[in-house]
Amino acid sequence: MERIGISRAAMGRLPEYFGYVKSLPKERQYVSATMISKALELGEVQVRKDLSDICGAGRPKTGYKRTDLLESMEKALGVRNPCEAVIVGAGKLGTALLGFSGFSDYGIEIKKAFDIGCDGKNPDVMPMDALTSYCNLHQVEIGIIAVPAESAQSVCDLLIKNGICAIWCFSTEKLQVPENVTVQYENLALSLAHLHQKVKNTH
Amino acid sequence: MERIGISRAAMGRLPEYFGYVKSLPKERQYVSATMISKALELGEVQVRKDLSDICGAGRPKTGYKRTDLLESMEKALGVRNPCEAVIVGAGKLGTALLGFSGFSDYGIEIKKAFDIGCDGKNPDVMPMDALTSYCNLHQVEIGIIAVPAESAQSVCDLLIKNGICAIWCFSTEKLQVPENVTVQYENLALSLAHLHQKVKNTH
Repeated sequence: MERIGISRAAMGRLPEYFGYVKSLPKERQYVSATMISKALELGEVQVRKDLSDICGAGRPKTGYKRTDLLESMEKALGVRNPCEAVIVGAGKLGTALLGFSGFSDYGIEIKKAFDIGCDGKNPDVMPMDALTSYCNLHQVEIGIIAVPAESAQSVCDLLIKNGICAIWCFSTEKLQVPENVTVQYENLALSLAHLHQKVKNTH
Repeated sequence: MERIGISRAAMGRLPEYFGYVKSLPKERQYVSATMISKALELGEVQVRKDLSDICGAGRPKTGYKRTDLLESMEKALGVRNPCEAVIVGAGKLGTALLGFSGFSDYGIEIKKAFDIGCDGKNPDVMPMDALTSYCNLHQVEIGIIAVPAESAQSVCDLLIKNGICAIWCFSTEKLQVPENVTVQYENLALSLAHLHQKVKNTH
């Protein structure tokens, strides 16, 4: 994202732009920032900036060629080269993530979770010993850790052993990883604390 | 957080510092950044900066008085004035959040979720029509929206009607709220996309 110059905030708005442009009738050849901003009730300056980050400058007055814009959006979103992620830990959080539909907006597919206590009831939850063959077969790129803190490091090691270089970790346990592995922590408690602090300082 | 000058990253490390300082024997009167950084294997410069943001400058060589440091940390974390949050929507995500223990680290208690399809099996999930009396009785400050996108706005309206001014929203639906209400969106898909993008640009 840094390299192609699209901010995280713009990435957040992108699926909405994309959905709108995709929904337009095929006869419409050009799409402008003004059109999008009106349809989605967003500030025009912001939309213009976002589109220019994603697809360069549009033509004055007419805007962007619809097909070009869609192509650039698909590229930025990653939907043209979808990648797969697996979840380890099929507790409440793991199964909640498994059920989310929003990941595919960004070209990320989550089809399976792996759990030590897999009972076979949910076909999308597989036993831990199936992880290696699954990762190899599906060229899984991202591992999601949704296990209790005390198991996070061993799960992380296992994911790395299976060739995964991107770890999304819901445990606050600090993970030890080699240099080529990227870990992103998702600290929900911290996020809520941040909201609380904002409100305390406002009121 | 902005006002008291503690960064979000420092807030993320704070529970760890707090846990460590609390775990020290009462006989220990002084705690230094060096001590904490060694025990937690964190960079000393960072710990020093964090502690000075939280508790001002320590005494050269000796560090901070343990009781003063704990008091400042408790204040920054908000654990001295705990506040309560309620969840609306007791699907997989809602119940996962209900089961998290990490929120109390930041003085936020989540005791109940409310759901339209409450079946009485989980004592911590209550029917929607109990929301108003619960919010009044417990002076709930934060509302967490974990319902499908199409219900997010009506749930938000209801929370605001019950005096809640801080909304943590897991739906990507853009909420319409009055000026005095703060909404923080938690877009997990975007967060994962961000990791994916980071890794794509690295490898």
